[in-house]
Amino acid sequence: MQAPASPQTSPTACAIIIGNEVLSGRTQDKNLSFMAKLLGKYGIIMTEARVIPDIPKTIIDTVNACREQFTYVFTTGGIGPTHDDITAQCIADAFQNPLERNPDALKLLEAHYDKDQLNNARLKMANIPKGATLVPNPVSAAPGFNIENVYVLAGVPRIMQAMMEHIAPTLAGGAAVQSKTLSCFITEGQIAKELGEIQNQYPAIDIGSYPFFKQQKLGTSLVMRGTDTAALDACTNAVRDMLKTHTNDIFEGELNDN
Amino acid sequence: MQAPASPQTSPTACAIIIGNEVLSGRTQDKNLSFMAKLLGKYGIIMTEARVIPDIPKTIIDTVNACREQFTYVFTTGGIGPTHDDITAQCIADAFQNPLERNPDALKLLEAHYDKDQLNNARLKMANIPKGATLVPNPVSAAPGFNIENVYVLAGVPRIMQAMMEHIAPTLAGGAAVQSKTLSCFITEGQIAKELGEIQNQYPAIDIGSYPFFKQQKLGTSLVMRGTDTAALDACTNAVRDMLKTHTNDIFEGELNDN
Repeated sequence: MQAPASPQTSPTACAIIIGNEVLSGRTQDKNLSFMAKLLGKYGIIMTEARVIPDIPKTIIDTVNACREQFTYVFTTGGIGPTHDDITAQCIADAFQNPLERNPDALKLLEAHYDKDQLNNARLKMANIPKGATLVPNPVSAAPGFNIENVYVLAGVPRIMQAMMEHIAPTLAGGAAVQSKTLSCFITEGQIAKELGEIQNQYPAIDIGSYPFFKQQKLGTSLVMRGTDTAALDACTNAVRDMLKTHTNDIFEGELNDN
Repeated sequence: MQAPASPQTSPTACAIIIGNEVLSGRTQDKNLSFMAKLLGKYGIIMTEARVIPDIPKTIIDTVNACREQFTYVFTTGGIGPTHDDITAQCIADAFQNPLERNPDALKLLEAHYDKDQLNNARLKMANIPKGATLVPNPVSAAPGFNIENVYVLAGVPRIMQAMMEHIAPTLAGGAAVQSKTLSCFITEGQIAKELGEIQNQYPAIDIGSYPFFKQQKLGTSLVMRGTDTAALDACTNAVRDMLKTHTNDIFEGELNDN
């Protein structure tokens, strides 16, 4: 019924957010949106995300299902020193590779911690599946890692962000996804028919319609996304022209809440 | 390696968050944490969440996979009037039930909209899979619906919240999940070994360890969760006693950022 967010040829990504704290509602995930935006700049489309608990079988099965299905898989969470940090072992099990003490990871931890601070719990963070490549952690040393198309990252946002910024330029990407937004104080039911017709005219562009309540009024933001600049501009112009038949107040971009 | 968040007998829930806008990073989902916390009070454990795009086959396949696997499935998003609102049709297809004009949903829309405002696009919101029960929408009339163990809700948070608050008391729940939190300015690597030993002693309680940087200092929040009040108290006391061997500054609950 609707155009996909990008040409089928774009590489795809899946985020696997590992952590009971996200599923319990204790922690609000902020990693998905960061990853999605950064990958979009490299033409890699975030196509699915899964939030899963700290249960080994679930982690292993989810990683194995997703690495077959998507170009890239990014996991977040579970690579620290405590009993609930089980991601590295689960990734090793998913790939049926042994988990082993990685000498380069060990050096990173030895450089970061005083000798009497580098206890067995922290040394666990040097246990990496055989064959994996380390992903540097400029914040707190303990590295992430990459094995085949799976990237295993920290859950703490500023560490995850540094890791993603290191990784993203190394990935085989596609045409960057661009977006344009128009906002207006028209409710989406008023323009739905015309909007659907414009969507049909521009199948390469994904038009999203998002209602809002701002400045004490109901309105709609229309977001056009795609990799084809000419089609994006033409589609945006068509939406703007349509909106002009309803209102003179059309805002480029999102409206803020003020 | 770790105790599940609750006894295996607790009912489980899966959230399916439908929307390109969440996957693109445009919109920060806030519905998962609300649902998880509310369901937890009724002893229903949020066990997985999936964020999926507005693609019919993906929606249909995900709903069909998840409704087999979890006690309850809650979808958010895609029940409005525009071309990208395809959830009702997909749920009908998932259940192989026809999508039909629901007379009760029609009445709700007729009561909410002026007659000249109730155009075909808005009437689409009265199309509900055959056999479904409506979920009231006190904000903007267009209802959600329930079919078997699948609950189809709006994506707009305040509408979704009202729908969930209507639904939650009607569900067959379990023992309420309770949690206790202790925070301290000890890094998790310092206490990881002892914490793991306490986890082993209290398999019915899920102990989560979450590092933080607050008040310019590194620290850790320890979250104990479970349905067995006596075990929760005993486990929390054991964690507190362990922390006392490291520091005199132990805070009940989360620390704020000040």
